[in-house]
Amino acid sequence: MKKEVLDHGYVELVEHWGSDERIIEAARMSTQKGFKGWGTSESPGDEKLLKYLWDNAHATPFEMAGFIVEVKAPIFVFREWHRHRTQSFNEMSARYIPLPNENYIPTVERVTLTDAKNKQAQSIKPLLPDSAEIWLSNLGNIYSILESTYQAGLACGVPKEIARLVLPVGRYSAMRASANLRNWLGFLKLRCDPSAQWEIRQYANAVAEIVQQKFPRVYEVAKEATGMP
Amino acid sequence: MKKEVLDHGYVELVEHWGSDERIIEAARMSTQKGFKGWGTSESPGDEKLLKYLWDNAHATPFEMAGFIVEVKAPIFVFREWHRHRTQSFNEMSARYIPLPNENYIPTVERVTLTDAKNKQAQSIKPLLPDSAEIWLSNLGNIYSILESTYQAGLACGVPKEIARLVLPVGRYSAMRASANLRNWLGFLKLRCDPSAQWEIRQYANAVAEIVQQKFPRVYEVAKEATGMP
Amino acid sequence: MKKEVLDHGYVELVEHWGSDERIIEAARMSTQKGFKGWGTSESPGDEKLLKYLWDNAHATPFEMAGFIVEVKAPIFVFREWHRHRTQSFNEMSARYIPLPNENYIPTVERVTLTDAKNKQAQSIKPLLPDSAEIWLSNLGNIYSILESTYQAGLACGVPKEIARLVLPVGRYSAMRASANLRNWLGFLKLRCDPSAQWEIRQYANAVAEIVQQKFPRVYEVAKEATGMP
Amino acid sequence: MKKEVLDHGYVELVEHWGSDERIIEAARMSTQKGFKGWGTSESPGDEKLLKYLWDNAHATPFEMAGFIVEVKAPIFVFREWHRHRTQSFNEMSARYIPLPNENYIPTVERVTLTDAKNKQAQSIKPLLPDSAEIWLSNLGNIYSILESTYQAGLACGVPKEIARLVLPVGRYSAMRASANLRNWLGFLKLRCDPSAQWEIRQYANAVAEIVQQKFPRVYEVAKEATGMP
Repeated sequence: MKKEVLDHGYVELVEHWGSDERIIEAARMSTQKGFKGWGTSESPGDEKLLKYLWDNAHATPFEMAGFIVEVKAPIFVFREWHRHRTQSFNEMSARYIPLPNENYIPTVERVTLTDAKNKQAQSIKPLLPDSAEIWLSNLGNIYSILESTYQAGLACGVPKEIARLVLPVGRYSAMRASANLRNWLGFLKLRCDPSAQWEIRQYANAVAEIVQQKFPRVYEVAKEATGMP
Repeated sequence: MKKEVLDHGYVELVEHWGSDERIIEAARMSTQKGFKGWGTSESPGDEKLLKYLWDNAHATPFEMAGFIVEVKAPIFVFREWHRHRTQSFNEMSARYIPLPNENYIPTVERVTLTDAKNKQAQSIKPLLPDSAEIWLSNLGNIYSILESTYQAGLACGVPKEIARLVLPVGRYSAMRASANLRNWLGFLKLRCDPSAQWEIRQYANAVAEIVQQKFPRVYEVAKEATGMP
Repeated sequence: MKKEVLDHGYVELVEHWGSDERIIEAARMSTQKGFKGWGTSESPGDEKLLKYLWDNAHATPFEMAGFIVEVKAPIFVFREWHRHRTQSFNEMSARYIPLPNENYIPTVERVTLTDAKNKQAQSIKPLLPDSAEIWLSNLGNIYSILESTYQAGLACGVPKEIARLVLPVGRYSAMRASANLRNWLGFLKLRCDPSAQWEIRQYANAVAEIVQQKFPRVYEVAKEATGMP
Repeated sequence: MKKEVLDHGYVELVEHWGSDERIIEAARMSTQKGFKGWGTSESPGDEKLLKYLWDNAHATPFEMAGFIVEVKAPIFVFREWHRHRTQSFNEMSARYIPLPNENYIPTVERVTLTDAKNKQAQSIKPLLPDSAEIWLSNLGNIYSILESTYQAGLACGVPKEIARLVLPVGRYSAMRASANLRNWLGFLKLRCDPSAQWEIRQYANAVAEIVQQKFPRVYEVAKEATGMP
């Protein structure tokens, strides 16, 4: 499962563990009764327990499953992502290798987007599509100038860890991230939310698709409260 | 994989994720070079990197693998185990069901064990095998009396959560525990150690066998420093 | 601040850090505007921001304050408490010293308490006060027998770590626990709840008093959602 | 306590809690013996226990103290810092306010520094002071161009969260960070190390001074193993 996100990014599932059933099994450790089976339209089964666990914040059984993704995203997205301290991260390092020349350029539509519920997404004054287009083309030029300065530094012997000072937070980096399902759902609750920045929301939505595919019954019970699309 | 431990306990592998290779892949995110292959006797390969990571405390790649076990152990062992706050737990609950009448009785050999390096394992004065045998037979009787009191309480309507007050810390309980490999190795470093109580060491040794089977190359590089048998 | 809990236990404040103001300061790092002042009845001040932070799950500023308590409680209470993995614990150890002969004996009123909303607190069949009284007096006798066996073991040289096998989960132990305010509030939300066992709820209520005294404005905004009394 | 770091940054102590004595008190919970007193040149006291705790990785008592700092540092330093997931952070947000025009320009001496033990700090080929000077002056110009583009975006109505795309990782941001002493020492062990980037090492050294001032006895026992200066 690999899903493209923004102009150069992606979210790709590396591996998952556990399952809807494993979560029930873990919850039933308390009574030693194990997984009894999913229900039919006539007689409900363990989906009732799953819903009960979620609705009543019995969160620990959701720690008995999880997954690892590989993500390519701009640095400003990773800056937000890395605040989720219950995940494990291994990221590309500009101390070790020069970061490839890939930078995020939003579309005019995205930049002129207005969202009454999300004050941070708004401009203080109206942004005309023409102005947006001009600024975005400026952005492209600036990215080129930065890359030249970066390469010039590397070429004359400036250490990679210093040459990177000019890299903008719009530049792409890549990482692997691992978390258990409880913590992924916590991430989604904050990052699928309309108040989250539009860019990280696209990544969160891609993560939500993994939840839907690999843990379809958890997806059903958690969908509304987490805001998964 | 299920391994019997003590007189009624066990450690059983429920599921694992990741592999020796995945750890290398995660570490190589920094340079984007991926897993290159294990070496041969003539030309060493990524086992060198694995050893480097371990020896230099580059610990995060070891978070990209892990496993879940089911464990049956006496309460006093779980009391020590649950101090490892980076694991996830789901345990049998005496609020929900009466705990079965299974209790730990050590052998005379274990009780008279002396270990010059482990002061906590020693008695203040010499314990004669005869005295040990008498006390252990006492222990069995006490366990019976406790069980009668427990059952009498439950029978006359004392709530389970109160009736359990008489349960001794020698009684068995059961749980599932999940952690990533970095945290399992941290657990093993403390609990395979000669200063750990002999009983939890038997459980730790059983966990170490899982590491050896599922992550044989990590086992090799971490064996000495963690004290895995 | 020391508050007695149950028949031999207590919760005592050792030290706290941070304040209602510090939480505002931390939240205002995002805009660099600092603490502006609390309001008056005519013009509201930063208590509005505090309420906004709480109501919208902006949880990290609440990590910039916290406190440490010393607690004496029965082992079965600590077994529940130690599942809160974001706290730091240092507890008395029966490997190092014999646990003093103090054991929890509930009152008849507590044992015959019924709570329609808390199934775990209920007996399966009605418990008559007379039966409760008999069982509780039995409990006292059992505690005495256990203590004799414990002392007999210690006296003849059984190592402390083994002699403790007979200790019941009703015996008292003691610890220090430290957490930041975010995590204390998470603890209170689960342990002031009517579904929590009555005993740990008494401890949680004592912890809530510390919140009320040292962080009175946080107490006001968090009271309802956490169930603090 | 406020210490200037790099050309525009600082580390300032906001508040600390606990003390060398509190750590001893916490460790002695296990035996209920409390703090006994520091020794004299003739008769050693609890500094022996403190050293024993540290040398034998009895780490939990060090969680019973801690401190909060305010830090101003370039984004690339924060990118490294935020990988320490046991700390609490509240940072300035470029979604909420424009980041002030302050950017890190290293000295020629720093850029031409060579360190045989730290491969990441080295350039692949020798860097002449003249080349360094030219590139650093370039860096200054680039920072100016970026600032103009940033301001132009904000002026024409590009939302702050998008206008920030051009901000370089050399730009300064500010945050508060809180951790207990165990976790600060873990941070110092990695970031006072010669293999850490020179810039974060200057911040780590400033944090180490706080440890030395507020927890002088912990500083003494932990100095060598953590590499505190």
